[in-house]
Amino acid sequence: MLSSRGGPDAGAGDTCLVRACFGKPVPHTPVWFMRQAGRSLPEYRAARGSGSILSAISDAPLAAELTLQPVRRYGVDAAILFSDIVVPLHAVDFGVEVEAGRGPVVAQPFRSEDDLDRLRPFVPEADAPYVAEAARLVAAELAESGVALIGFAGAPFTVASYMVEGGPSRTFAHVKRLMHSAPELWDRLMARLADMAVASVRAQVLAGAQAFQLFDSWAGALSPAEYERFALPATRSVLSQLADLGVPSILFGVGTGELLALMGSAGPDVVGVDWRVPLDEARRRVGPRHSLQGNLDPALCLAPWPVVEEATRTVLSAASASASASDPASNSASNSAPSEGGGHVFNLGHGVLPETDPGILRAVADLVHEETART
Amino acid sequence: MLSSRGGPDAGAGDTCLVRACFGKPVPHTPVWFMRQAGRSLPEYRAARGSGSILSAISDAPLAAELTLQPVRRYGVDAAILFSDIVVPLHAVDFGVEVEAGRGPVVAQPFRSEDDLDRLRPFVPEADAPYVAEAARLVAAELAESGVALIGFAGAPFTVASYMVEGGPSRTFAHVKRLMHSAPELWDRLMARLADMAVASVRAQVLAGAQAFQLFDSWAGALSPAEYERFALPATRSVLSQLADLGVPSILFGVGTGELLALMGSAGPDVVGVDWRVPLDEARRRVGPRHSLQGNLDPALCLAPWPVVEEATRTVLSAASASASASDPASNSASNSAPSEGGGHVFNLGHGVLPETDPGILRAVADLVHEETART
Repeated sequence: MLSSRGGPDAGAGDTCLVRACFGKPVPHTPVWFMRQAGRSLPEYRAARGSGSILSAISDAPLAAELTLQPVRRYGVDAAILFSDIVVPLHAVDFGVEVEAGRGPVVAQPFRSEDDLDRLRPFVPEADAPYVAEAARLVAAELAESGVALIGFAGAPFTVASYMVEGGPSRTFAHVKRLMHSAPELWDRLMARLADMAVASVRAQVLAGAQAFQLFDSWAGALSPAEYERFALPATRSVLSQLADLGVPSILFGVGTGELLALMGSAGPDVVGVDWRVPLDEARRRVGPRHSLQGNLDPALCLAPWPVVEEATRTVLSAASASASASDPASNSASNSAPSEGGGHVFNLGHGVLPETDPGILRAVADLVHEETART
Repeated sequence: MLSSRGGPDAGAGDTCLVRACFGKPVPHTPVWFMRQAGRSLPEYRAARGSGSILSAISDAPLAAELTLQPVRRYGVDAAILFSDIVVPLHAVDFGVEVEAGRGPVVAQPFRSEDDLDRLRPFVPEADAPYVAEAARLVAAELAESGVALIGFAGAPFTVASYMVEGGPSRTFAHVKRLMHSAPELWDRLMARLADMAVASVRAQVLAGAQAFQLFDSWAGALSPAEYERFALPATRSVLSQLADLGVPSILFGVGTGELLALMGSAGPDVVGVDWRVPLDEARRRVGPRHSLQGNLDPALCLAPWPVVEEATRTVLSAASASASASDPASNSASNSAPSEGGGHVFNLGHGVLPETDPGILRAVADLVHEETART
């Protein structure tokens, strides 16, 4: 077990990360890094070897070890389960692989109603038992440490994007054609993918995850009107179906400056913000009822430390301004909600780049802890 | 010569497009489509054959023909010279090629001060005389037609991105590392690229282009603070150096919602807006002194006509709301400026996708003309 970092009160489920997500008082601003388990770490490269990522994910002890490496290395407040948003799709044999350096690739893209037949319901304990097993291993290791385990799933729109495009896309031509040409079929696909996300997250939380993030990585390709019509309803459904778990939810996408208010309306406890929108501006768009996560530019972490240090302080300062601005409204508006709003989870604005020096991220985590420590 | 579409007043340089850019009264909202000369047109595929795009560009009669094809096909109010933003870089032998389906690729990326020696000044008449020759051929063909010819260049940041990354990038890791680690070297590179853009645009305008667009396609990868420090100064310098030409300028980028006000402050007559930000919201960010260009989602043009029709009307409606909102301030603020602000140039929010049905774009152009005709 890791030594405790959560302070004397941090029992399971009441970690610094969870408290910040809910907008409750915290001993310091919690920090974790998207893709913190990854190629920037030499111990990751050593443990992973050259096998495919889906094969590493299906090896629960290995996945647990990769999940824990960045906790040891960076001193972060959360581990995020080593997995991938296409794991459920892969597990129901839809025919998706993850190509190194490219991302998810679908052999037979989803283009018509017939393709719905290839998308059977995802039953986590039967189709991908290794995910919950890895979560159990990590949760046991983190017990009493004050470090939270975050589970995750792809939001329906982003998973659909991979399915319909057949892989990463710059234009989203096929997916937009489908949603606008066959909106009823689109809605049926989104409902299926919402069920898939719900099943996946529920299994991870029941196995020990104390929070979860929905990655809607490509939502920024949509106009606000498209997001509201074609992506938001299914995301809202996922969050609503998972509300009974009582764990905080984080909704994240890239290039979502125009969508932040709509993303907040989907009902997450935390809205993730990429590096393009300063957190005080994000607060104006999201309103007072949510916590915010972000948003140091991952590419900036390749710069010399003084640049990274200044940028980290800038994020903390914008988060602090954002919290003060939201306090009054938060107090009056959220009495009935589990989340009090106004919290901040420090993170990057997108995933760690493989070229990143791990020493820089450790220094960022330390700086965030020092600067925000409350006695 | 093409038949006149500009109305009785439309002498050379006083076309509908130019008037809209300057915010002057127009007979109808002018329309053109980014990448209107391209693979969506069968006549383009027939004329281009299988040679490289840089070789087609260097064949002035072919480039002129490809420039004119969409004018005939779509009835648009402007032709944009068939060329590429890396033509000057290629012409000074920096070692860039354009790979089909991938984009510009640089054999030896720019990474250190030594690389500045490989970037000699661009002298259009000696290094790429075919560009002005193509512009002259097109301008002669368009004379008295009321259709404007638009010249263009890459904005310094976007050209630098290709040079430093070595090709298209998702993360902009190298370019951000360079700007933050070696800001003085970065500034010298940007100054050189500003000179290159100025020389390139000046040659095109002297050869007959009546307006020009700066493509800062990747600016949206920058945070507002980064844009202001590392991209804006060179773009402002380009626009300032070209002001004596008296032709309108358009500044366009993708994913620039957070940057629109800063882009306006660079001094273009027109700010191009991608599909993510409705034009009335863009107007609030840019202010009253500029015209706006955009912003139908190109991916939406793959949908059935009723969807495209509604989306086109939505763009026109937002543009109209934006113009009304800006009138009072425009009248009081712009007496001394050549541009009166508040105009609208209809366009897509990014380039035409190759899969697009040309009939759809023709119908969009016709609809814009019909809906906005003033008697």
